Amino acid sequence: MAEATGGSRRRASWQARRDAIVDTSAGVFARQGYHATGIAELCTANGLGKGALYHYIGSKEELLAAIHDRVMDEVASGAARVTEAGGSPSQQLARLGDELLDVIHRYPDHVWVFLHEFPALTGERAERFRKRRRAYERQVEAVLREGVETGEFRAVDPWLASRAWLGMHNYTYLWLKPGGRLSARAVAQPFADIFLHGIHQGAE
Amino acid sequence: MAEATGGSRRRASWQARRDAIVDTSAGVFARQGYHATGIAELCTANGLGKGALYHYIGSKEELLAAIHDRVMDEVASGAARVTEAGGSPSQQLARLGDELLDVIHRYPDHVWVFLHEFPALTGERAERFRKRRRAYERQVEAVLREGVETGEFRAVDPWLASRAWLGMHNYTYLWLKPGGRLSARAVAQPFADIFLHGIHQGAE
Repeated sequence: MAEATGGSRRRASWQARRDAIVDTSAGVFARQGYHATGIAELCTANGLGKGALYHYIGSKEELLAAIHDRVMDEVASGAARVTEAGGSPSQQLARLGDELLDVIHRYPDHVWVFLHEFPALTGERAERFRKRRRAYERQVEAVLREGVETGEFRAVDPWLASRAWLGMHNYTYLWLKPGGRLSARAVAQPFADIFLHGIHQGAE
Repeated sequence: MAEATGGSRRRASWQARRDAIVDTSAGVFARQGYHATGIAELCTANGLGKGALYHYIGSKEELLAAIHDRVMDEVASGAARVTEAGGSPSQQLARLGDELLDVIHRYPDHVWVFLHEFPALTGERAERFRKRRRAYERQVEAVLREGVETGEFRAVDPWLASRAWLGMHNYTYLWLKPGGRLSARAVAQPFADIFLHGIHQGAE
């Protein structure tokens, strides 16, 4: 028992250290790019020797995948809360926007790396990332399709409308920053207002 | 006279070769990132020795700036055509969308580099790029503000609405490709339809 507790404490401590390394490294990759960053720079940024760094991250690409997962974990949790809460397609779409901008606002470095460096993921890691990203995009598309089918939304193409919605929200990563003049919600609300007016049946 | 003509021919030929190098190099940067690309790789991709390459591009950063200028030249020409054509804020916004998606559709590699590598520009080149980009963004914002002021659009925040519009359009660089299933216009029209319904006074 005591040993198991010690083991889980060690695992928790390893995980906390690993998370901190993922966060610090996201900043380094965001500033100078994934390909241009060497292991030596990651060691300096994290105050670790090469052996210790590899103990936590495995490989540079695994670190990149961990940054992607950090973003996708948050995006997926937000999307799950929206499904859980239910409501009309309009309500769900507004909540999806709230949740997505909250992640972008809290993780500017991770999102920068996520949106710029995803082509550097290879093999199984690339496939896993594509699947998670696609699952999220399909949820947005499904909400739009439902709204079109029930007549709440006009007869827009759900795929194209989902692309418009994703672009509008994702692209905020360039200017929506922690400590900036706008909160995530101060952007999400007017965006939902524009987009929902744009597709609502009454708007015809 | 004959000599001057020879000189301008030489300049035109130098410019054409330089343009081809800019286009080829945009593809290389888009695939593997600006920082991670060495001069040797640019030489191989362009079939030139180091001396010849420098003769055309000056430096790696000048090449990056030239890729940005190629995009900004096209974007600025399109925006000037919209101003020239005049019309209501709605018409102008729809035309700005047509023009922007046309550039994104024709220059996928350049736009990828433009949107990802702009922080690598330094000093005067960074300043020049920021000014050109800002001028374009302000034109979009001005059209929105005019529409709000004349009552054609609802009382949206012109700056935030311009960000939504830019995100929606710029972000198409991830999936709008030459030879893809959708033309620039097939995307620009439904996007304008959603966005204009979203801000039109009648939509309240």
